[in-house]
Amino acid sequence: MANQDKILMSHGSGGSMMSDLIESEFVNAYIDKDIYLGDDATVLDKIKLGDGEKIAMSTDSYVVQPLTFPGADIGRLAVCGTVNDISTSGAKPVALSIGFILEEGLEISVLKEICSSIAKSASEAGVKIVTGDTKVVEHGKCDGIYINTSGIGIVPSGINLSGQNIKPGDVVLISGTIGDHGITIMSCREGLNFSTNLKSDAAPLNSLVADVLKAAPDTRCFRDPTRGGVASALNEFAAQSNVDITINEVEVPLRREVKSACEMLGYDVFQVANEGKMIAIVPPDHADAALSAMRANKYGKESAIIGYVDEVSSSAPKVYVQTEFKTRRILDKLVGEQLPRIC
Amino acid sequence: MANQDKILMSHGSGGSMMSDLIESEFVNAYIDKDIYLGDDATVLDKIKLGDGEKIAMSTDSYVVQPLTFPGADIGRLAVCGTVNDISTSGAKPVALSIGFILEEGLEISVLKEICSSIAKSASEAGVKIVTGDTKVVEHGKCDGIYINTSGIGIVPSGINLSGQNIKPGDVVLISGTIGDHGITIMSCREGLNFSTNLKSDAAPLNSLVADVLKAAPDTRCFRDPTRGGVASALNEFAAQSNVDITINEVEVPLRREVKSACEMLGYDVFQVANEGKMIAIVPPDHADAALSAMRANKYGKESAIIGYVDEVSSSAPKVYVQTEFKTRRILDKLVGEQLPRIC
Repeated sequence: MANQDKILMSHGSGGSMMSDLIESEFVNAYIDKDIYLGDDATVLDKIKLGDGEKIAMSTDSYVVQPLTFPGADIGRLAVCGTVNDISTSGAKPVALSIGFILEEGLEISVLKEICSSIAKSASEAGVKIVTGDTKVVEHGKCDGIYINTSGIGIVPSGINLSGQNIKPGDVVLISGTIGDHGITIMSCREGLNFSTNLKSDAAPLNSLVADVLKAAPDTRCFRDPTRGGVASALNEFAAQSNVDITINEVEVPLRREVKSACEMLGYDVFQVANEGKMIAIVPPDHADAALSAMRANKYGKESAIIGYVDEVSSSAPKVYVQTEFKTRRILDKLVGEQLPRIC
Repeated sequence: MANQDKILMSHGSGGSMMSDLIESEFVNAYIDKDIYLGDDATVLDKIKLGDGEKIAMSTDSYVVQPLTFPGADIGRLAVCGTVNDISTSGAKPVALSIGFILEEGLEISVLKEICSSIAKSASEAGVKIVTGDTKVVEHGKCDGIYINTSGIGIVPSGINLSGQNIKPGDVVLISGTIGDHGITIMSCREGLNFSTNLKSDAAPLNSLVADVLKAAPDTRCFRDPTRGGVASALNEFAAQSNVDITINEVEVPLRREVKSACEMLGYDVFQVANEGKMIAIVPPDHADAALSAMRANKYGKESAIIGYVDEVSSSAPKVYVQTEFKTRRILDKLVGEQLPRIC
């Protein structure tokens, strides 16, 4: 294809073109295949802490536009995103780094606001910011502020979570309404106004993950459905464990205004980004306990059991949606680009 | 001042405006003051490994232009820079993350080359790349490729290096010629051609640091003089330990072509960036052992003892250069911007 020799916006979408780029260029060239399992955080098995604990590490860069939006800003997003990625390994996030790329001409008052938001979010998550870096590029070579947050967490002894652990019969939970972040950014950027109440869900979910793990210690894995939404997260899970996953559409928590916006714009809400939601896959006998624990957490009041895991029924693992009309459709990863730079 | 409310290129120079920004915005807002000592890597004292070892963490973003230049490229720079920062704590670097921000339209062949360079440099340094992230921004919102590398290392038991440990009487060593990287980038960017032999010194210095620590276990601290050059590194040290530092200009290893370029362009070579040099401060009775160890390393053949530490002689700690003409001048941090985006 004509454009396959150049980077396209869709290479950053969280969908299938991004997975292909990661596999063909990065994993192939330099990723340590002994420990990289395709999860959002990598557990460093060889570094042993005192009592059987391990270190988990994760990184994310943030290029969201605009820099502030209802419910959050790039600073809160940067802290919560990496806290959540680390948490998916079952680790307690302990230390973050902040790397800024700043555009010449940026108002220092804007930077100050973002720094204050970083401080508040880190304090809420109980994670320390221990090191940083600052680069400045010429006006027009960045879009105000890009932030990288990297971090480490401590995985308690005996915890071994991965998208590779899923088994037929397992149950799929989500910690609340889907699509809020993506639709907020989109409406903000396009000047649309679906609802004065709609805001980004960006939030640190480390306490929610810890609560679920305590109530349902055999939890298979967690993933926060950010870029590419629930569709990407579940398709990654299905591929990692070679299973089918079916979602019951009517069980999925969804705000009316997000549903309307998606219908109007032709978006599949399952492909819309979230920044404060967690998917958990648990064995069936742990589902109720996991759900209760999620619902008891501040950020999980609208949690629900939304689906289940099956043996693979065709030539390749697939994710299905059982629609409200009792039909079944295949839920694919996003192929092109829905809405760039949502995180 | 009129411009103090906006970000300027000099906020990224590694000089005094960058230090001021770090102190006034980042350290003030969110950096954990219990463990941040102003060094290039932060040792996480509270995470105890099995046998008294500790974790060190560092981060850096790379926005160098052009992406490839004689001797190295942004990929090698990104790996070596973070490996070297981690090494300054005395840690053995073990795991790196790679976060890409890519510009729409970038040739994938360019990305492939950079990835291959990342792989080679990581392999040379003996460090694993364990996790990553990919963002794509619109054409014109980035300059081809920006990379963040973050990483962790393991600090052996009993090692406690910091710019805060320096004492009067200590000796200053450098692992080779200064200014090579900055002058290479400058000549490359401006289309000047000082010498066909001049190239960036970008190199992983973890083995050199380990060799010095073995030979001179009481070494006070290391720092790689990148942005802001030797001037920034030594001024940071002087401030951290409240001491004066004097450099003997005639002892400083310097390529003829770098010297000429600096004279022609009016640069102070002590403020020019290096990407493969390490400064070590050691007690006087360890100086010979440290020098021999440095010289025996592949990347330290031209190492030299270049100065010494004194009690503070005026109202504030200062760095002096004893010139070849036996006069003494104050060596300040870079105030404005010499050459943007050299790393």
